[in-house]
Amino acid sequence: MTQSELKQTAAIKAADAVHNDMTIGLGTGSTVYYLVEELGRRVQEDKLQIDCASTSKRTFEQAQQLGIRMHPLSEMQTLDLTIDGADEIDAHFQGIKGGGAALTYEKIVALNSKHNLWIVDQTKLVSQLGAFPLPLEVNPFGCQQLIDRLTQEGLHPKLRYTQQKKLVKTDMNNYIVDLHLEQIKHPHLLADWLDHQSGIIEHGLFLDLVNEVVVGQASGPKVIAEIR
Amino acid sequence: MTQSELKQTAAIKAADAVHNDMTIGLGTGSTVYYLVEELGRRVQEDKLQIDCASTSKRTFEQAQQLGIRMHPLSEMQTLDLTIDGADEIDAHFQGIKGGGAALTYEKIVALNSKHNLWIVDQTKLVSQLGAFPLPLEVNPFGCQQLIDRLTQEGLHPKLRYTQQKKLVKTDMNNYIVDLHLEQIKHPHLLADWLDHQSGIIEHGLFLDLVNEVVVGQASGPKVIAEIR
Repeated sequence: MTQSELKQTAAIKAADAVHNDMTIGLGTGSTVYYLVEELGRRVQEDKLQIDCASTSKRTFEQAQQLGIRMHPLSEMQTLDLTIDGADEIDAHFQGIKGGGAALTYEKIVALNSKHNLWIVDQTKLVSQLGAFPLPLEVNPFGCQQLIDRLTQEGLHPKLRYTQQKKLVKTDMNNYIVDLHLEQIKHPHLLADWLDHQSGIIEHGLFLDLVNEVVVGQASGPKVIAEIR
Repeated sequence: MTQSELKQTAAIKAADAVHNDMTIGLGTGSTVYYLVEELGRRVQEDKLQIDCASTSKRTFEQAQQLGIRMHPLSEMQTLDLTIDGADEIDAHFQGIKGGGAALTYEKIVALNSKHNLWIVDQTKLVSQLGAFPLPLEVNPFGCQQLIDRLTQEGLHPKLRYTQQKKLVKTDMNNYIVDLHLEQIKHPHLLADWLDHQSGIIEHGLFLDLVNEVVVGQASGPKVIAEIR
């Protein structure tokens, strides 16, 4: 199977968790793209009735074009389920997101969901977080001072640039700083410290949020669920 | 003395803390306006040499017109001193700011200053914080869910509107939510809880930041300094 086929198979498997009359949060990324395609197919062919919010404009538009009922998050009550991708996830279902610079919206949607399901390929499963650089969304105002403080703390911050050497800007016109940590031994302690820093809008540690993971692999997608 | 004269006298007193070759953070508000006027006078008449950053565009422009050397915060190393107003301050020098909706920039500047001085009138001195509604700068995305959560926590949130019944927007296009708490018994615990809520960009509790307060009063401005 090609990488695309693996993603598509996993996405279709994840879509099994979506049933009539549910409110769904739709994430962003290449795997979620296939999920939205599958949900659009079921809305059209099987008359699936769902109401959805999304973490990005791109997903919102894709879903709307497929006839999925889309709403702004603020008009939704709690979401029943959010399905999203991830950049890293460990054995305790703690994860890193933000490679696509949409971590703030993604976390807000996840926090407002009763249930969170992530779709990943096998390479995203790690024993310890941190090989993937941890993204922070940061306020441009005072950004240099913040980076100096992060450097002093030994957190190896790097401002994220586009391939055209321009500063990456989020949907809210903030910058992204990636922490090149190699390993994160205590994700909760680090999250707590980052939460307290003024100038950091949001960080990419998604802790105690995910309930279920669908892993795409050649032998067929595997569902792993955490018992809480 | 009129209210304006009280503010002016206190501002001129606060300006005594500013000396040659210092880097200064300039806050925002009606009292700081007089401070900037006084510093401008000293730059012109006494050849005072200072480099300043500010917490708002308004102060930046006022100071620049008076010939004060102004810089973006990111181009400054640490500031020696920041002078700002406040909405409430208790006997332990813990305070509330954000009545003017500029709390995020104000806090970032304060955090990057070695020394912080606040100018207030006597009505701002309180035995316990909280009669002044505590401002939060919040992300519009998921704002309704955040307000619901704050309500459930008994924090009495209210979205701030202008007199023309439009939503107040900050310089970063976020909303302001005011918590009508009447009293804040444990400011550090509340600040900690608020720090952990996604969707809250910044809160108006300024804890363990202020070293010195100039109080404007009819008998002449009084300087009170905290010993740490």
